[in-house]
Amino acid sequence: MLLGSIEAGGTKFVCSVGDEKFEVQNSINFPTTTPGETLQQAIDYFKQYDVAAIGVGSFGPIDMIRESKTYGYMTTTPKPHWSNTDVMGFLKSQLAVPMYFTTDVNASAYGELIAQGIQNLVYFTIGTGIGAAAIQQGQFIGGISHAEMGHQFVKRHPKDLAFKGICPFHGDCLEGVASGPSLKARTGISGEDIALDSEVWDIQAYYIAQAAISATLTLAPSKLIFGGGVMAQEHMMTRVRTHFKALLNGYVMTPPLEDYLQVTSIANNGAATLGNFALALKELRHKT
Amino acid sequence: MLLGSIEAGGTKFVCSVGDEKFEVQNSINFPTTTPGETLQQAIDYFKQYDVAAIGVGSFGPIDMIRESKTYGYMTTTPKPHWSNTDVMGFLKSQLAVPMYFTTDVNASAYGELIAQGIQNLVYFTIGTGIGAAAIQQGQFIGGISHAEMGHQFVKRHPKDLAFKGICPFHGDCLEGVASGPSLKARTGISGEDIALDSEVWDIQAYYIAQAAISATLTLAPSKLIFGGGVMAQEHMMTRVRTHFKALLNGYVMTPPLEDYLQVTSIANNGAATLGNFALALKELRHKT
Repeated sequence: MLLGSIEAGGTKFVCSVGDEKFEVQNSINFPTTTPGETLQQAIDYFKQYDVAAIGVGSFGPIDMIRESKTYGYMTTTPKPHWSNTDVMGFLKSQLAVPMYFTTDVNASAYGELIAQGIQNLVYFTIGTGIGAAAIQQGQFIGGISHAEMGHQFVKRHPKDLAFKGICPFHGDCLEGVASGPSLKARTGISGEDIALDSEVWDIQAYYIAQAAISATLTLAPSKLIFGGGVMAQEHMMTRVRTHFKALLNGYVMTPPLEDYLQVTSIANNGAATLGNFALALKELRHKT
Repeated sequence: MLLGSIEAGGTKFVCSVGDEKFEVQNSINFPTTTPGETLQQAIDYFKQYDVAAIGVGSFGPIDMIRESKTYGYMTTTPKPHWSNTDVMGFLKSQLAVPMYFTTDVNASAYGELIAQGIQNLVYFTIGTGIGAAAIQQGQFIGGISHAEMGHQFVKRHPKDLAFKGICPFHGDCLEGVASGPSLKARTGISGEDIALDSEVWDIQAYYIAQAAISATLTLAPSKLIFGGGVMAQEHMMTRVRTHFKALLNGYVMTPPLEDYLQVTSIANNGAATLGNFALALKELRHKT
């Protein structure tokens, strides 16, 4: 049996075919242009394979509430051409297999769940934007929508009070002060060129640690996992653990921080594809 | 059939007996002294009635993970005599009925769930301390422990930067700057004596609104409900809605705020008792 994965990103789509063990057999990627062109490319790719089900992890915001009239739609995204697109309707009109629709970060979180064999986790991706997903007892968190934890407010670092933040909605929410582009906005230098001894890294880690604390206090997961470009730098996870420990100040028990706060365990950004395969299989079992 | 409720508060215990419709038939309350004395008073009360099951909503922190070795214990509470008390063991040693053990704020949240007939909500209590509980699809949120949302960090109000906050663990976490006692610490005047046109109310509402936003972005509930002494003042809910709207700035859709952000719907602090009755019944059905 073959399973399909669509990582529908705002910049590119990655479509993959895998086997029942969730091993990738084939993969293709192409830029995200218009819905008509890009979704058709995905459809044409999967028409070559006899996939039993497809998992779709999409950029957003999306409507993933099955009872909703606009289930399967991309809703109010700033990405040109994609607002109010019936993504799932388009895909299903030409691919007659069960499909599971969720956010890209939910797909990555589910991939970690499968890889690590745990049932409660929170996954943060910290890159151009900040997204998060939470799973409890194997189920995605989210009552009437999906999580948007990247836009929570944080206590400002005393040395960073003059920086207004770059979120167009909130200024200095978490994404406004701790995403990759906030580094350049603050220093005038791209993140990859900032010296390791710059205090800006600790400022950023201070904010990310607060998001980790908020997730800990709200959800009590057994692990917090970090992906995305910012956290791919080895020194960042250490800095986040240091600030997490100092800020939480022993108020609640957590597992040892080396285990509790981790970078993604799956190489080559493979979490979302793995998650999509597993969600495709879940949908197939649910439907049959 | 009769059901029992124990509201185990840090100041007093309220024990109640109710019928299958969750109507209170009888109630008693007494101060919280030592575990031996206070838990025995609760036991002696229930020995007078033929209750089929009891719901226990307790101050904390508690261990409510059923698989844990210390399930049913109060853990590291600052309340003298109560740390590491086996609350459920003591109760069960003399009352041979099914019992459901949870936090006091979880019990209140469950009471609102029953009263309002909804499946996804967050309940905040804002008084001497700040506690919160979340329910999704009828289940309490909490992977390896219960929620402690009162201790998340918040963006400080520009006019309140000099105030250090009163949380012994975190200084200016939410509880440190928005609980009832923070009002007196900031102004030197007890909350009930502060004029309604004091800017301190808006400062406090600004922080509470951030907690509501964080819960919205993390959990996407269909309603946020507020209890506790601070929110019992009619003007506060209006202030919180105003700041919520301004801070969230339309980033995610919510129901209309008059409906979405509400004070408790149950008179006379009755949410916890209702929740305990309903959880007692749930436990009974689970056991039989």
